[in-house]
Amino acid sequence: MAGHLPVSPLAPKGGFPDLPAVPGVRFATIAAGVKYQNRADVMLAELSPGTVIAGTFTRSRTRAAPVLDCQEKLGGSSEEGAAIVVNSGNANAFTGIAGVTAVKAITAEVSALLDIPEGRVFTASTGVIGEPLPHQKVIATLTSLQTALAPDGLADAARAIMTTDTFPKGASRQVQIEGKTVTISGIAKGSGMIAPDMATMLVYIFTDAKIGFKALQALVSTNCDTTFNCITVDSDTSTSDSLLVAATGQSGIAVSTEKNAPFATALNTVMDDLAKQVVRDGEGATKFITVQVEGAASNEDARLVAFSIANSPLVKTAIAGEDPNWGRVVMAVGKSGAEADRDRLTIRFGDVLVAKNGQMHPDYVEADAAVHMKSQEVTISVDLGLNRGQATVYTCDLTAQYIAINADYRS
Amino acid sequence: MAGHLPVSPLAPKGGFPDLPAVPGVRFATIAAGVKYQNRADVMLAELSPGTVIAGTFTRSRTRAAPVLDCQEKLGGSSEEGAAIVVNSGNANAFTGIAGVTAVKAITAEVSALLDIPEGRVFTASTGVIGEPLPHQKVIATLTSLQTALAPDGLADAARAIMTTDTFPKGASRQVQIEGKTVTISGIAKGSGMIAPDMATMLVYIFTDAKIGFKALQALVSTNCDTTFNCITVDSDTSTSDSLLVAATGQSGIAVSTEKNAPFATALNTVMDDLAKQVVRDGEGATKFITVQVEGAASNEDARLVAFSIANSPLVKTAIAGEDPNWGRVVMAVGKSGAEADRDRLTIRFGDVLVAKNGQMHPDYVEADAAVHMKSQEVTISVDLGLNRGQATVYTCDLTAQYIAINADYRS
Repeated sequence: MAGHLPVSPLAPKGGFPDLPAVPGVRFATIAAGVKYQNRADVMLAELSPGTVIAGTFTRSRTRAAPVLDCQEKLGGSSEEGAAIVVNSGNANAFTGIAGVTAVKAITAEVSALLDIPEGRVFTASTGVIGEPLPHQKVIATLTSLQTALAPDGLADAARAIMTTDTFPKGASRQVQIEGKTVTISGIAKGSGMIAPDMATMLVYIFTDAKIGFKALQALVSTNCDTTFNCITVDSDTSTSDSLLVAATGQSGIAVSTEKNAPFATALNTVMDDLAKQVVRDGEGATKFITVQVEGAASNEDARLVAFSIANSPLVKTAIAGEDPNWGRVVMAVGKSGAEADRDRLTIRFGDVLVAKNGQMHPDYVEADAAVHMKSQEVTISVDLGLNRGQATVYTCDLTAQYIAINADYRS
Repeated sequence: MAGHLPVSPLAPKGGFPDLPAVPGVRFATIAAGVKYQNRADVMLAELSPGTVIAGTFTRSRTRAAPVLDCQEKLGGSSEEGAAIVVNSGNANAFTGIAGVTAVKAITAEVSALLDIPEGRVFTASTGVIGEPLPHQKVIATLTSLQTALAPDGLADAARAIMTTDTFPKGASRQVQIEGKTVTISGIAKGSGMIAPDMATMLVYIFTDAKIGFKALQALVSTNCDTTFNCITVDSDTSTSDSLLVAATGQSGIAVSTEKNAPFATALNTVMDDLAKQVVRDGEGATKFITVQVEGAASNEDARLVAFSIANSPLVKTAIAGEDPNWGRVVMAVGKSGAEADRDRLTIRFGDVLVAKNGQMHPDYVEADAAVHMKSQEVTISVDLGLNRGQATVYTCDLTAQYIAINADYRS
């Protein structure tokens, strides 16, 4: 099924970006036939000795075997090389002891082949839940993958990890520090079952910055809260969400992790870019929706309201129908669980002031809002009028194509 | 739009039930032209002196003016008569001071006309949110409504309060107590924006039992938790959810409110019946889904898991596609927030054991589960294997017709 869906109308206009190679990282991809035929479905990334790896993972109580394995391995010694192996087509989730065995078998083979400790081999699997992963198919490709390793394989890697994705997702930033260039290049996959809880489906970001584990992990966790943890396609949280950031240190530049330092800003930009690309490839999406909430009692309350709006089937179908149905926004505020006073609510669609102080604004003309709803980028702004809490989340509309994809496709 | 949708395939086979009249209650309906044309859109119920009225309402923070008004009036003196006035087509929600004015105007007129205190006039409005209610249209019909009052108008009342409903909803039980008959007859409306939080859209139940306010309110609240608070169509909670139970006492039978006493059981049955009819009329529904959870750490946890499954777009679309996609059930358990151990999970579709101890059961044959998925009534059972917490909730599938209704219809 994957690959047969039309490309999302929200896909970045320029196509896949030209991602600069990151010194210290080599990639290879191959068609292992895990589930899909005639396309690459396994990627291998080899990381040089000294690479620091941070990450975040789903907090699902039913998380998959590779996720649990990766979580145990974070923060280990970075002296030796490392590797990341990802397959698409099968999530190796809810596969019991067979799932653990599959992870151990793959990591042991990669460890022996690349001469790195097993504790430095990270795996991930994405696709159907509940079917045993045919890990021998993956293992059979490892020698070929090793031979093919090259620094410029990131675009192919982005394609190999796709499932219901309709376009590959990549983002990059380069920053000048002490007269030298530090590169950050990353890829992501994700389209449905997107309501990340610590991270989204699969995200791999590489940099040649020099940075310690604790500092990198702190940056990644903080950034996650405002990027991957601020998107939702369908409110359904995956069992496999994994994000890894690998810093090879090959630039020789020890970066500052202060909030506004160039590296921290660039990393945040890459994560934000990738997160929004996941929304742009939301299953069946035709509109990219930004939900801005301010004036809440707290940031946490603002987040509750924003996600209540972004996950509401009635709000999302109204936007699919290009209907400025602000009554449904009121409903979503009311059910969110956050503190709210109906008579202090202000609602805008784009720049159009729709409602103020709990009722339709006297100057509101529906035709004005209708113009905004016809655009591909829709913004809903809500001011709760209580305090200074704010949050912004990103989502897409809910269309008949979402139903078609998910009623017919076993993912 | 209302009335133009095809009747839900899940509608009760026998059509609207023959509801026995309740001594002490008279009904009338009329076409006031609030929004819909050529159909009754206002109902008036007149209740005899001595009628005790209990109720539950939405806990939405953006609840409508009539809801706030009704909440204030519960528990007042029952010595004099009472009335319930409901209009469809306009929810009088998020209408600011104009909404309060409309409620006051209607209740004042009804009070004068029927010679009952304003504090005994309950109103409700259902339909579009955010547009001022043209309450003069309602008031203009009151004299005609009074003239038309008759004991057998419950079926017409059920039709007058419909919006996107495709069939009217009614249920009744009669119990023999001390050699006399006590009658309970009720009606409900609701089809979309159904994720009740204290009650569902609009429900009116009438009985001639003799019972005090506190006892009736306690019964209603307890029953709500296992009936209207156990259904969901789309996870979106209405701003207008209201349930009223009016006991006229005209049978002269003072009823016992013990949990298993005949009246308590009959009231629970009527509420359960009406709640399930709301699900059966879920927008676009083709399957009635029962989600049973047991073995949870607590009843509260069981409820979290059951609603996580029942509200998951991916589970609901899989069922629409008749796909026994149990991986999505695993996902929904994992994201629920409830305590869960992946390796103790047991999942069944109907009687078919799909997964046990965190993996697919060796005897599982997908074709068996596929047979169950083809039926109109689908049951998903999950045993968390932890403790004795349990919950059962009811929902429907998510289809392209739900999108069509909500992308195109301003409700």
